[in-house]
Amino acid sequence: MFIGMVAGGAGAAALVGVTAAAAWPSSAASESSSASASTATTMVMDSSGSTDMAGSGMSDADMNASAEAKVGQFLDNAASPITAGQGATELEWRTVNGVRVFELTCEEIEWEVIPGERVAAMGYNGIVPGPTLRVVEGEPVRVVVRNELTQSTSVHWHGQRVPNDQDGVPYITQPPILPGESYTYEFTPGPFGSHMYHSHHNATEQVGKGLLGALLVEPAERGSEPPYDKDELYILNDTLGGFTINGKGFPATAAYTAGLGDRLRFRFMNEGQMVHPIHLHGLTFEVFARDGYPLPQPFRCDTITVAPGERWDAIVVADNPGVWAFHCHILSHAERPDGMFGMVTALIVE
Amino acid sequence: MFIGMVAGGAGAAALVGVTAAAAWPSSAASESSSASASTATTMVMDSSGSTDMAGSGMSDADMNASAEAKVGQFLDNAASPITAGQGATELEWRTVNGVRVFELTCEEIEWEVIPGERVAAMGYNGIVPGPTLRVVEGEPVRVVVRNELTQSTSVHWHGQRVPNDQDGVPYITQPPILPGESYTYEFTPGPFGSHMYHSHHNATEQVGKGLLGALLVEPAERGSEPPYDKDELYILNDTLGGFTINGKGFPATAAYTAGLGDRLRFRFMNEGQMVHPIHLHGLTFEVFARDGYPLPQPFRCDTITVAPGERWDAIVVADNPGVWAFHCHILSHAERPDGMFGMVTALIVE
Amino acid sequence: MFIGMVAGGAGAAALVGVTAAAAWPSSAASESSSASASTATTMVMDSSGSTDMAGSGMSDADMNASAEAKVGQFLDNAASPITAGQGATELEWRTVNGVRVFELTCEEIEWEVIPGERVAAMGYNGIVPGPTLRVVEGEPVRVVVRNELTQSTSVHWHGQRVPNDQDGVPYITQPPILPGESYTYEFTPGPFGSHMYHSHHNATEQVGKGLLGALLVEPAERGSEPPYDKDELYILNDTLGGFTINGKGFPATAAYTAGLGDRLRFRFMNEGQMVHPIHLHGLTFEVFARDGYPLPQPFRCDTITVAPGERWDAIVVADNPGVWAFHCHILSHAERPDGMFGMVTALIVE
Repeated sequence: MFIGMVAGGAGAAALVGVTAAAAWPSSAASESSSASASTATTMVMDSSGSTDMAGSGMSDADMNASAEAKVGQFLDNAASPITAGQGATELEWRTVNGVRVFELTCEEIEWEVIPGERVAAMGYNGIVPGPTLRVVEGEPVRVVVRNELTQSTSVHWHGQRVPNDQDGVPYITQPPILPGESYTYEFTPGPFGSHMYHSHHNATEQVGKGLLGALLVEPAERGSEPPYDKDELYILNDTLGGFTINGKGFPATAAYTAGLGDRLRFRFMNEGQMVHPIHLHGLTFEVFARDGYPLPQPFRCDTITVAPGERWDAIVVADNPGVWAFHCHILSHAERPDGMFGMVTALIVE
Repeated sequence: MFIGMVAGGAGAAALVGVTAAAAWPSSAASESSSASASTATTMVMDSSGSTDMAGSGMSDADMNASAEAKVGQFLDNAASPITAGQGATELEWRTVNGVRVFELTCEEIEWEVIPGERVAAMGYNGIVPGPTLRVVEGEPVRVVVRNELTQSTSVHWHGQRVPNDQDGVPYITQPPILPGESYTYEFTPGPFGSHMYHSHHNATEQVGKGLLGALLVEPAERGSEPPYDKDELYILNDTLGGFTINGKGFPATAAYTAGLGDRLRFRFMNEGQMVHPIHLHGLTFEVFARDGYPLPQPFRCDTITVAPGERWDAIVVADNPGVWAFHCHILSHAERPDGMFGMVTALIVE
Repeated sequence: MFIGMVAGGAGAAALVGVTAAAAWPSSAASESSSASASTATTMVMDSSGSTDMAGSGMSDADMNASAEAKVGQFLDNAASPITAGQGATELEWRTVNGVRVFELTCEEIEWEVIPGERVAAMGYNGIVPGPTLRVVEGEPVRVVVRNELTQSTSVHWHGQRVPNDQDGVPYITQPPILPGESYTYEFTPGPFGSHMYHSHHNATEQVGKGLLGALLVEPAERGSEPPYDKDELYILNDTLGGFTINGKGFPATAAYTAGLGDRLRFRFMNEGQMVHPIHLHGLTFEVFARDGYPLPQPFRCDTITVAPGERWDAIVVADNPGVWAFHCHILSHAERPDGMFGMVTALIVE
């Protein structure tokens, strides 16, 4: 039934509860969405990171119409992307003498965070987050990094126990990679789990603008992690593109989908400047790893707080059907008078 | 002895240590309290969430007099409330065909956060936090919500695994509840533990202004939680009414009281926009649940950090007599040149 | 080999990776360091706690030269301090009738946070953090506090279960210590572990300016804590002196050093206003205590988030040689266009 709903667009975007007593608004007001998107960007760019709710000047009807239109866009996006560009796609590699070889190019790009709003960004291979690197604990990798930025850079393998000269800290472990130059990193991955790679040079700007990606290290020994049906990323950022999940802000965030009973693995990673407590409605997190390291005992919760630099892994058993909101619970990162924005997505259990 | 102290007012508000070498200030300066309260509100409203300590322009004697007066007010408040209105009182219900039925009305109200300072708020049944709903795991409930605000709203049962159409997210699971309309929610509570309910529409404003409350789900099986003598709420908010505990700022925060040896259960909940590390002097937290879910193993600490959306449950054994400060350890949420304010209370062990 | 590097100064400050393809910049530009230090202070003092990356106006070559110069200063600092004053040195005591007696004097001082930049501070015994007090669980202590400030103060023994009249909260447990007065605290330490002492009067200003220190309580029973070779403090502050570790900002932060295979105990303590997630490159934290209390089970991670008022204890086994960056992962607390600053240090494993 949710497939039908998702395909139905804004006008059919909500389920009316059987006990509902209220009238159902029918005007989708989709014509207001580009205007609200512009406003959104302005407000996100505010230096305080928060928004002034006072004096929004919107009528209740306008607020509802805008909120509904955005939900409609979000559900449309699940069927067909409403912004250009998709981050965190898995990067293909070639194998050279038993070494898994990846190639990354750092570029200044424009990135569409929400429909119609392109921000000046920095991407690996043109996307934000950069491509996901999937490697295996104990099996050597090589990453060739080409710098096509107008400033120097470097890459740090966040969470990996690499040899010091592969650690990516300019003037401590290597020279910076100058514009136009390339640099090759080589290491044997470990420990396994959910890790990250990102710039370690002028990093507040470079990581803020998008020079980051997931580094997923599969354990050498199967059975080191709990079983799951789907492997999902939830990468947070909060700086130069506003509040984003996997490089997009609501309504352009991708919905997660699951069949009833599926076990989903979520890999939460924070590449931003603020702590974000991520809340999932209607379901339960079973948190089993912190920074890739298996916890001595998993714990359960519905709000998992992810600080910058941290990674948390959780299993969600999709045992409750519906469209479940899945968002940062710092409400000013998730909702404004004109509706939800920023760090909001949903898990759709069909 | 502490009862006597509490009743003694500002002039007798402190215990002099046996080793004290300093003279004891005797001027209570209570006439300065309304002025400092006004200043307090202005400073809390500052968009950065912090206060400028430089140039406070107060003399040391004035600072002390103001600090003493506020402590006096706080201790007076333990005997007789110094502000109008008390939030989070437990809501009575009626039982209809085996269903526990609650009624909530959303209203725009004025709420007295500190003496003499009323802020524009939104309350369920006229109070902030809204009334506490106490239910039992597995026993069905119905909540009839009437919206008397000038804007739409909805209610989310934060932490509960409800059917999707009862989840309270406008345009995803239901239409918004329009001004003047009512909406009825029905669900069977679970999981047990410390949960919350709050608006999920224009929520930065609505929750910030007070549309929030505790939802306490008693376990179906006794023995699922550790035993305790007193059940206490500690609900944080930090937005439109400033830094508050259970809807009040120091000195209007209610003190917690215990007999020597009592086991108190504290339910920490954060409905604000910031992380708050809550520190208790002289005693020890035994933290046993996160978001309602029992931890695999309890842990001990004296500072429990509560992120927005999180709930933490802790037992405090009142095994050390005295008046123990109990406050957010982000010091700018708790103390200014004119004394303590905001997220400060005390646990009084008699 | 790292000793040689540390002694080599800025020009030899980095290891060139064997796979490096980039040219190595040779101009150290050390003449720019005092200018960049001035800029640093201005930016740190910005009320938002963040820095505007836009329009830094620096060329790539200038950014690299500044970054290199700062790394050089940091490594020089490991050989010979580049700023005046060292905080957190252990305080000597005398024993009087079986009581360990310490003396602390509160003073307004200037404190050099980074080279050439002195800030108006408040220190115990003239240093920031104040001297470290090392005591033993169950063995009585006396601390004589003399207030030579121009404002009142008090001392709170954060994390200790003291008698209430020794708890240090003005007008609740004692009168404030007036300027020119002294006050004597007496208590029997417990629980053991990593604790703190600091002002509890006008504390946002006083702790922000430096009235804080470590209180290390050794367990009465040996074997209560895991074994270690070195005992290291990592005290965070973020207010009136900017972003600091043990009272200094990068490049004046002290590097930690270890022999290969050493077990280091780090005691993380946050006396600031913000949460700081501390990330260590190339090695692993084994976290074994929270607020001094042993965890029921240690956990491993590479990023340990420390909220204000919290203490976390971790063992690091120095099993990977090199210079490992060790910094707050809120990147705006650690790096700017002109290079690393603030909450950055390194663990050098030789």
